[in-house]
Amino acid sequence: MKTFKTPLKDMHFVHYEVLDAMSSYDKLPLEEEVSKDLISAIMEECGKYAENVLFPLNQPSDKEGCRLEDGQVYTPKGYKEAYQQWVDGGWQGLSHPAQYGGQGLPLSLGIMKAEIIGTANWSFGMYPGLSLGAMNTIYTHGDDAQKDLYLSKLTEGTWAGTMCLTEPHCGSDLGQVKTKAEKNDDGSYTLTGTKIFISSGDHDLTENIVHIVLARIPGSPEGTKGISLFIVPKFNTDENATVGEFNNVNVGSIEEKMGIHGSSTCVLNFDGSKGFLLGEVNKGVSAMFTFMNTARIGTAIQGIGTAELAFQNSLAYAKERRSMRPLSGPKEKDQVADTLMKHPDVRRLLLKQKAIAEAGRAMLYDASLIADGLMSVESQEDFDEIDDKLGFLTPILKGFFTELGIEAANDGMQVFGGHGYIQEWGMEQIARDVRISSLYEGTTGIQALDLLGRKIILNKFKQYGAFNKRILELYKEIMRSPYRWKMMRYAGPLMAYHLRWQKVLVTILLKARKDRDAVGASTYDFLMYSGYMASAFYFTKMALASHYRLDNGGDLEPEFYEAKLETADFFFDRMLPRAKGHASAINGKVGSLMSMDEDDFDRQHA
Amino acid sequence: MKTFKTPLKDMHFVHYEVLDAMSSYDKLPLEEEVSKDLISAIMEECGKYAENVLFPLNQPSDKEGCRLEDGQVYTPKGYKEAYQQWVDGGWQGLSHPAQYGGQGLPLSLGIMKAEIIGTANWSFGMYPGLSLGAMNTIYTHGDDAQKDLYLSKLTEGTWAGTMCLTEPHCGSDLGQVKTKAEKNDDGSYTLTGTKIFISSGDHDLTENIVHIVLARIPGSPEGTKGISLFIVPKFNTDENATVGEFNNVNVGSIEEKMGIHGSSTCVLNFDGSKGFLLGEVNKGVSAMFTFMNTARIGTAIQGIGTAELAFQNSLAYAKERRSMRPLSGPKEKDQVADTLMKHPDVRRLLLKQKAIAEAGRAMLYDASLIADGLMSVESQEDFDEIDDKLGFLTPILKGFFTELGIEAANDGMQVFGGHGYIQEWGMEQIARDVRISSLYEGTTGIQALDLLGRKIILNKFKQYGAFNKRILELYKEIMRSPYRWKMMRYAGPLMAYHLRWQKVLVTILLKARKDRDAVGASTYDFLMYSGYMASAFYFTKMALASHYRLDNGGDLEPEFYEAKLETADFFFDRMLPRAKGHASAINGKVGSLMSMDEDDFDRQHA
Repeated sequence: MKTFKTPLKDMHFVHYEVLDAMSSYDKLPLEEEVSKDLISAIMEECGKYAENVLFPLNQPSDKEGCRLEDGQVYTPKGYKEAYQQWVDGGWQGLSHPAQYGGQGLPLSLGIMKAEIIGTANWSFGMYPGLSLGAMNTIYTHGDDAQKDLYLSKLTEGTWAGTMCLTEPHCGSDLGQVKTKAEKNDDGSYTLTGTKIFISSGDHDLTENIVHIVLARIPGSPEGTKGISLFIVPKFNTDENATVGEFNNVNVGSIEEKMGIHGSSTCVLNFDGSKGFLLGEVNKGVSAMFTFMNTARIGTAIQGIGTAELAFQNSLAYAKERRSMRPLSGPKEKDQVADTLMKHPDVRRLLLKQKAIAEAGRAMLYDASLIADGLMSVESQEDFDEIDDKLGFLTPILKGFFTELGIEAANDGMQVFGGHGYIQEWGMEQIARDVRISSLYEGTTGIQALDLLGRKIILNKFKQYGAFNKRILELYKEIMRSPYRWKMMRYAGPLMAYHLRWQKVLVTILLKARKDRDAVGASTYDFLMYSGYMASAFYFTKMALASHYRLDNGGDLEPEFYEAKLETADFFFDRMLPRAKGHASAINGKVGSLMSMDEDDFDRQHA
Repeated sequence: MKTFKTPLKDMHFVHYEVLDAMSSYDKLPLEEEVSKDLISAIMEECGKYAENVLFPLNQPSDKEGCRLEDGQVYTPKGYKEAYQQWVDGGWQGLSHPAQYGGQGLPLSLGIMKAEIIGTANWSFGMYPGLSLGAMNTIYTHGDDAQKDLYLSKLTEGTWAGTMCLTEPHCGSDLGQVKTKAEKNDDGSYTLTGTKIFISSGDHDLTENIVHIVLARIPGSPEGTKGISLFIVPKFNTDENATVGEFNNVNVGSIEEKMGIHGSSTCVLNFDGSKGFLLGEVNKGVSAMFTFMNTARIGTAIQGIGTAELAFQNSLAYAKERRSMRPLSGPKEKDQVADTLMKHPDVRRLLLKQKAIAEAGRAMLYDASLIADGLMSVESQEDFDEIDDKLGFLTPILKGFFTELGIEAANDGMQVFGGHGYIQEWGMEQIARDVRISSLYEGTTGIQALDLLGRKIILNKFKQYGAFNKRILELYKEIMRSPYRWKMMRYAGPLMAYHLRWQKVLVTILLKARKDRDAVGASTYDFLMYSGYMASAFYFTKMALASHYRLDNGGDLEPEFYEAKLETADFFFDRMLPRAKGHASAINGKVGSLMSMDEDDFDRQHA
């Protein structure tokens, strides 16, 4: 891997000019005022750290991987030093309360930070990322003593955190969890069981690790209603956070994975480890899910950041590498061959990556500004309302943009031809690393079920309706604007695809009256349709903002806005039409998915 | 990786019942008569060898890889023994002339053989596969002495072969080749230069390796017109094929790749190596391309075989693994959860892999029966006519089915959830291995250019017209058959998509009058559209054959034919509609791909 530059201009364009983040911040009860200057300074600093410290470690750490020695996991060379700079810079607590040592900035800025570091080095970013999950869970469900003890250390970054859900026999089906938590006389619990796929499960970056563990108290009801949440530190501590003896959280092994080799994925054996109840008994699953939306948004960043990184690297190669002449004739006759940039199909691969990164970024920041409210709500009702709004966007962001991030990484490899397959160039690492993104935090299939089943149908179309309203409002805004003719190129298709989005939903619901499998048979295609339509919405918003700025003097050079409009052109002409295929699949017979007898799947191989 | 069973039933169904291979063989001037019994016996034997010898080596050889020691490449443990069995079984010469020790069977049976071994272990299959390329080239362009010397050893399998095209500065752009061939007094040449990405470039499987090398004789014209072809053995030999001293073909390194670690991909330095002109001076590129169609068909097998392997393994997992309940309610109430098979979206992933493997197999065998004529033609004109026919199908097979094979491998991983990302289960290896397939032997972009630019437009629509005619004839056959009503489900959409195939081509040509980039801007989407339409054609053929067989007693059980019809249902309902997106992209403006100024691609990252 050769190049990474923080896409600050596009980040600021989306944040300030498209989504008007500053007005949104004005409404937040922030501990300190935020200004554009402050935000820009923070992101610039974060970008420097990512470019100069994290990115150079990305490729070597893939080769080296993590190692397990005498029960202790060691991260690749340079991670420990880079993490120390992370702690020294106060990055971990950027968007967490000052009360626990944080900087009290909005969550949305934490998401921009996560995007920058995740794009530069996703494996490294997993460590602080998992800590965030633990922090959010303790912040919401912990008692004061737990918050005082754990949150200050986690916010500082001197302790790290994990989320321990999955077990060997169950992935996302948490009702099957078997890890046992037996109550001790002192009110603590003793945990016994095996957890797998624990990201950052062990490492050498911090003096302690705080595991958030789902387990079953003997005698609890079966299924998800009998599962509780526990804090289980790697090393026991006293109330002053002095680290004491080992708490029998044993690393069984490090998983050998396709990629993200710099991130340790552990099998953890809780062999009579001391734990503390977090939240209420038997409410563990819902407590764990409190921040599921933000966790899944965190994963969406991998798809978006990957598209950016693959784009930057394949663009650099396409500008340099010479091969053949396009069908339309030679462009640089004095050269032995034209650069790849001159070939239309290479431009297609580049523009696709660019469009994925930019649509994803816009949707990500939009969601992040909604999420900002979560940390400062006063009541469960307020939390639920924001979470509900966020919950509608989450499965689209996670499901769609990880799938498209994987595609973008493959496109990046494709630009390199055979060199894309060679480790040296780094493109195949990008593709291996991102491949996890559609698997963890719930597969694409689970996101698709979540969107249609839970976030639309069970939610009684409330947030679906709210998003529809936003599309209509954007259309009205365009009609009132001086750019209504220029914008027709986007607004027309947007409304057509939007109408069809509603039609396919009605189709599914009508079919479901006759066939109970109709919903399940449509979830994936509905998710993908929604993703393309949402992307069209965000590109339309970005195009409108670009026209305003071109006429009224934007903060950026005119070429920036023109390139944005051209990227939107590409998206509308050459990516959005894929949604038609998904709509047709939804209109297909349920039976074409469900009729085949299980025994007949492998008749031809007998 | 856990399971591989040769899909003999489906292979025979396509071969005998759909494509009527036996009638086709009757027309070939074969040295020996072939019967169904003989073919079935050969494929069964090949299947056993692949299942019992090659498949068990697939996963370990990925982990071990090849190693370079003191200038010699060593293949993974077990390859040498497996290769010896290959030689002993006479597999290398299955479809090569008896004159050189082969069995004289049709090329199409060699392709079935390659499919079986490639599905079980693609890395291993690369070694005999590259020998085939060398054999075909020498067979067509070598003089009698060269044939006598090299072909008998290659047919036996005791020597292997390679194809040395690419150099560091040029991939597919062979006009840039710099390797120098200087004539010696004895008529031989001395070769100096570096070749990269040489598959099977060195190994320990055979006593000698015959390199077919593109090089430039000093004073030759620039570009592809100044390049000649040479035979350069690893060890010099006398005319009795006694292996003598090392010929200075030095292995610079083995490439570290994303996958196919069992296959050695070498940098080869020809440091004054002795070579012999193959064919005419300065006709090297066209000679090298003589068997390009068959070589590319060989690569298409990787996509098709991968879909089969990923399907078999993810199916086995989906039948065993239990997780959650489908939206339509529990199916196995007495179990802790339903199997993955009960979830509609998992069925979608499985049926997609199955449909890709089966459509690909049908098209592959169809092409292979056309290719059969190549080995027995009497004149260049006859060769060209067959090659022309084959040439139309080749870029679709190679371009489309490697792209879809990569998708199938990803789908297979997806069925496994997080476990798909872990090396132990073997699914991520399948995905890594197949990723090369859309890169080598010409990227998808190059296949797309080849199809539209060369095989359709330059060919004056001749073979395009011939394929159109086949579609219309199939339609007529359906209309005359007793199954015309039942077949409407397939024949109707086939004709609609076929019509649109013609329309998009006209659209491209009309646009090209105004804008020279119009063709280049459409090649990829046209290739993909063609692939979906061709698949619809083959599924329609298979469906028709299934109806006949269901009514008239086929060789296979009824469930086989019913499953085939259900797979066709899935394809038509849920995959074919993707072609609409590609048609729309073709209808998009050329400018949406070509307008952006090169400098504006990274405005947002400055």
